[in-house]
Amino acid sequence: MRAIARRLYDAVRHLPIVSPHGHVAPRTLVDDVPFTDPAALLVTPDHYVTRLLHASGVSLADLGVGRGVLTEVESRAVWRRLCENWHVFRGTPVRYWLESELAEIFDVGLRPSAESADAIYDQIAERLDKDAYRPRALFERFGIEVLATTDDPCDDLAPHAALTADPTFPGRVVPTFRPDRYLEAAQPGWASAVARLGEAAGIETGTYAGWVAAMEARRSHFVAHGATSADHSHEDVGTQPLEDGEAERIYAAALAGEVTAAAGAALRRHMLLEMARMSCDDGLVMTLHSGVRRNHHRPTSDVFGPDTGHDIPLRGEFTDPLRPLLERFGTHPNLHLVLFTLDESVFSRELAPLAGFYPSVYVGAPWWFLDAPEAVRRFRSAVTETAGFSRTSGFIDDTRAFCSIPARHDMARRLDSGYLAHLVAEHRLDEDEALEAAVDLVSRRPREVFKL
Amino acid sequence: MRAIARRLYDAVRHLPIVSPHGHVAPRTLVDDVPFTDPAALLVTPDHYVTRLLHASGVSLADLGVGRGVLTEVESRAVWRRLCENWHVFRGTPVRYWLESELAEIFDVGLRPSAESADAIYDQIAERLDKDAYRPRALFERFGIEVLATTDDPCDDLAPHAALTADPTFPGRVVPTFRPDRYLEAAQPGWASAVARLGEAAGIETGTYAGWVAAMEARRSHFVAHGATSADHSHEDVGTQPLEDGEAERIYAAALAGEVTAAAGAALRRHMLLEMARMSCDDGLVMTLHSGVRRNHHRPTSDVFGPDTGHDIPLRGEFTDPLRPLLERFGTHPNLHLVLFTLDESVFSRELAPLAGFYPSVYVGAPWWFLDAPEAVRRFRSAVTETAGFSRTSGFIDDTRAFCSIPARHDMARRLDSGYLAHLVAEHRLDEDEALEAAVDLVSRRPREVFKL
Amino acid sequence: MRAIARRLYDAVRHLPIVSPHGHVAPRTLVDDVPFTDPAALLVTPDHYVTRLLHASGVSLADLGVGRGVLTEVESRAVWRRLCENWHVFRGTPVRYWLESELAEIFDVGLRPSAESADAIYDQIAERLDKDAYRPRALFERFGIEVLATTDDPCDDLAPHAALTADPTFPGRVVPTFRPDRYLEAAQPGWASAVARLGEAAGIETGTYAGWVAAMEARRSHFVAHGATSADHSHEDVGTQPLEDGEAERIYAAALAGEVTAAAGAALRRHMLLEMARMSCDDGLVMTLHSGVRRNHHRPTSDVFGPDTGHDIPLRGEFTDPLRPLLERFGTHPNLHLVLFTLDESVFSRELAPLAGFYPSVYVGAPWWFLDAPEAVRRFRSAVTETAGFSRTSGFIDDTRAFCSIPARHDMARRLDSGYLAHLVAEHRLDEDEALEAAVDLVSRRPREVFKL
Repeated sequence: MRAIARRLYDAVRHLPIVSPHGHVAPRTLVDDVPFTDPAALLVTPDHYVTRLLHASGVSLADLGVGRGVLTEVESRAVWRRLCENWHVFRGTPVRYWLESELAEIFDVGLRPSAESADAIYDQIAERLDKDAYRPRALFERFGIEVLATTDDPCDDLAPHAALTADPTFPGRVVPTFRPDRYLEAAQPGWASAVARLGEAAGIETGTYAGWVAAMEARRSHFVAHGATSADHSHEDVGTQPLEDGEAERIYAAALAGEVTAAAGAALRRHMLLEMARMSCDDGLVMTLHSGVRRNHHRPTSDVFGPDTGHDIPLRGEFTDPLRPLLERFGTHPNLHLVLFTLDESVFSRELAPLAGFYPSVYVGAPWWFLDAPEAVRRFRSAVTETAGFSRTSGFIDDTRAFCSIPARHDMARRLDSGYLAHLVAEHRLDEDEALEAAVDLVSRRPREVFKL
Repeated sequence: MRAIARRLYDAVRHLPIVSPHGHVAPRTLVDDVPFTDPAALLVTPDHYVTRLLHASGVSLADLGVGRGVLTEVESRAVWRRLCENWHVFRGTPVRYWLESELAEIFDVGLRPSAESADAIYDQIAERLDKDAYRPRALFERFGIEVLATTDDPCDDLAPHAALTADPTFPGRVVPTFRPDRYLEAAQPGWASAVARLGEAAGIETGTYAGWVAAMEARRSHFVAHGATSADHSHEDVGTQPLEDGEAERIYAAALAGEVTAAAGAALRRHMLLEMARMSCDDGLVMTLHSGVRRNHHRPTSDVFGPDTGHDIPLRGEFTDPLRPLLERFGTHPNLHLVLFTLDESVFSRELAPLAGFYPSVYVGAPWWFLDAPEAVRRFRSAVTETAGFSRTSGFIDDTRAFCSIPARHDMARRLDSGYLAHLVAEHRLDEDEALEAAVDLVSRRPREVFKL
Repeated sequence: MRAIARRLYDAVRHLPIVSPHGHVAPRTLVDDVPFTDPAALLVTPDHYVTRLLHASGVSLADLGVGRGVLTEVESRAVWRRLCENWHVFRGTPVRYWLESELAEIFDVGLRPSAESADAIYDQIAERLDKDAYRPRALFERFGIEVLATTDDPCDDLAPHAALTADPTFPGRVVPTFRPDRYLEAAQPGWASAVARLGEAAGIETGTYAGWVAAMEARRSHFVAHGATSADHSHEDVGTQPLEDGEAERIYAAALAGEVTAAAGAALRRHMLLEMARMSCDDGLVMTLHSGVRRNHHRPTSDVFGPDTGHDIPLRGEFTDPLRPLLERFGTHPNLHLVLFTLDESVFSRELAPLAGFYPSVYVGAPWWFLDAPEAVRRFRSAVTETAGFSRTSGFIDDTRAFCSIPARHDMARRLDSGYLAHLVAEHRLDEDEALEAAVDLVSRRPREVFKL
């Protein structure tokens, strides 16, 4: 089985990286300024790394979170805290990714520890000074063919335009439309957000009809700048049409600051259905990342802001909540709907059955907490028998840690090769088919599913 | 481990097939008319096959669904669509079953593809003309000892009587009582259904008491025709007694067309309890297949009818909903209650603990979407440590695809042999015990649990 | 991989046993009276054993449950029922534990069966007469360093004091504060329970403030007797503060016998928050064992009492219910909160993410139905990638079956060695790190997490 896996992996390991969903800032590639220091590159902004250190008793402040640019002394101290606590990452993918980054990108052979911290710091810092370690050079070295970023609907997408217009940058960097906050009428800041949306679109958003028109306009702007997908992340995936006039009524109440949480959720479920309709019209792939309680520990988010490691998953449910959407658009030829979950129990129960019938539905690759060897194996085991390989999305790295991109894609390729080899070894697949499937998962799946 | 698994499998592979639950039409065996064509035999009626083709962009109409008897040209076209899309079944059990049927039954050695489609079609068609491929001959060749069908309570069971009376047919074909629709007072068509029930029973069903008496009468009719079980499939497994008079009141309201969904569900939960009481009285095994949203995509069911591939599982729950039933009948010596789930999370959490205490409860074998190698392994892993092997039901194929029966049972035998071999290899079981358990799962479990 | 696992296991197999949570009666060790007979030692009081026999048709009465001291004839009959039904335990951990106890402790080489029952009985009975088989001798032979018992807040803890004061007993036996019933104001018997609590504390419990003070006093008593943790088991883990005065109001209503189930649950969720506050103050580790429907089959509990094998798990939920507690105390340096679940779907979805951020939270080892080889492997697979090893609790045996303690700890050591070896074999961990982790899981985790 190992020999088969190795042959499959060898066929895909050097294929270009297609990254259809992630959080790298496009400005990084426009400016191409060298990364400042090891802590800012590999520790501070990555909540995968900081959360487990925080759980182990290191404060977020001591990891540089929320402190802006670090001095060298501070950066070294942050880096040392990671190295001293290296053991807490045993068995986690963060360990694998960092180890891989250190070895493959920075030629670091030492195991991180209190003793080795400074030496490793010096070696990374020395490399970061070289031109070969500037963002564009790494982009090319990583073999990234397409990189999708995640962007606010009001964003002018100037960085994307600049990259497209730049003949010296051969890569493809596409924006992703991420309108969450504009759909949450009961959340603080919503009214000013939709006001900004109206300004960006040049369309009055004082009515629900105006909101719809402004959304359509901003989506067009994104499409014109190369976007192929719109990403949605809400507490649940509920979709439910409101009766005529009800959307306008709730919308007006929300603008007046008089909306209940329930009415806000009802409006959001109506709006999400509207976004699916827009996807049928303008072709943007619709991705749903749901089921997370954001900012679980308010004292931390009050001080350090969002995305600081305490978003905690919730029970997932798709069958009934998505039914109104799928009854309307589930067989629409323009719709690609990619469903991501953090609740593994829905993989075999709901996602694979849905993707195994609806031509519009794809099972999204394991995401976030589930983007790790054992979880990926459970995912393939849970999904394949009902939906095969062709109804899955291909890998997404979903990361803001630029240097982790190759390690993450490499891990996915190894794991899928292993799963396919297991099928071959059990005579459930011939090796030529497994080879075709392995290449398909890396090459064609993400391109087709995300229309890249 | 492979060697042990092989020895265990060799001991069970040729044992007769006991199929305690399925959907083969008994008329097929009475008439013994040759199967018409490859598409009608292997593709069109099997929603396991058509659903994944539909997800891959082939319309159900293009697969012959809802089109009655196909011409040879049409049948060939349907068959070609399967073969062209053979790759979408990679890693699924449909692939394994069809491959096995082609090789074992029809001697087809070619891999299905656009190129091989016609040749394979010709070979199957040629075989179907032979006497050896008529239903009764295949029944014998498959080694089927008992086959349970699924039947409406109003059915006169003439086909079953005919088969029993036929000295030239040595097989045993028993009906299964499936009364779902008669318990759903809030569903369209219920009033006319209970009227038919009354006619079939010769008992007035204008009252709830009449409904109970008519049900008992029809169950007796089924028992007299060899039935050993009653199968129930509702959205949930809720059981809850109504207060005196309440059942009659809701029943009357429902007949008058004035019942709410909630009252209908309350009546159904009362009726299900009543069915359990009847099972204690007449001995019919009670099987519960629940937790599915039927006909998820209404536009498809409007055109093509039910069972067309878009029944999607729901979250399952058994502990509390079944408590009223189990407090009354959970230790009754006559009750066998077999619980099936499509929500894997309940295997270790609820089903194994229930079957590990209540003498009446058995964990049903993995069903539908879960009837596949990885899922079966997860099932054994989840259930065995709490409930052992003896509290599980033995395999059920639950299929309407007649030719897939041997492949499905064979798969189950291989997987259980593999699981037992793994226990032996880890010194958790001696090989003689594993052998006894393997034979027990194939031979005695289904006979005892389903009282065959 | 087996060779690596063997090396890791060899390093931990003989380490002393730390048992931070269980149900052995401390009086057993104070009195050091010989165990009476095989049935009373190994069968009758252990609902792990009796439940599966009950499911297999043996009545609890025939297993000696609720019948007090058995005559030799009765004890032999109970023992024979176990041996005759030995096959129903195939694949269960009960089989492994009993087999291990028979071989390791009683030198029994025969496989239990109807034929061997009497011979095995005789051999065990003969050993039980020897001094080497008295409780203290076994305690020492088992290598138990610390054993935690589970005790009522009103308990005077005299047995613990006696053991501590006894220079001839070198072991450490610590009590655990288990206040469940005093938090359930809507349950029968609550009023008299809190009255007893008041007497034990010497504090009037006629008000909620008095209840709080009495609880604090009893916790102090437990701390003074060596307790390091307080264990809580309720249907859910909900925590929610009541508004000022509301707790007093519901408390008074409950004392007057006028409390609804909903109000009782609301008070309990407020009280649980209060218990967390007390843990921050007095340092007692807070453990939560939730999600079980106790006494599912009322006819059985009416006759045989609680803990007779029909507690059935429920769906678990932690993210939202624990949020109020974690917002207040989740980063408090004194709080250790260990979360146990019987719903495996929450391991990767909720527990690992919580323990991977909050310094106070630890994922409890697999418990009860999940304390078995396959389930433990699923646990490590589900938890490690998000929370590593350091955020888990170390093994707890949670048993009232004294003789099963070594077998249970040994099983955990084997399984963790196997999991770590698998990481080494896949180059995800170096062997020296795996060795350190294996020792840490056995030695330091339970001591640190449970403050032993």
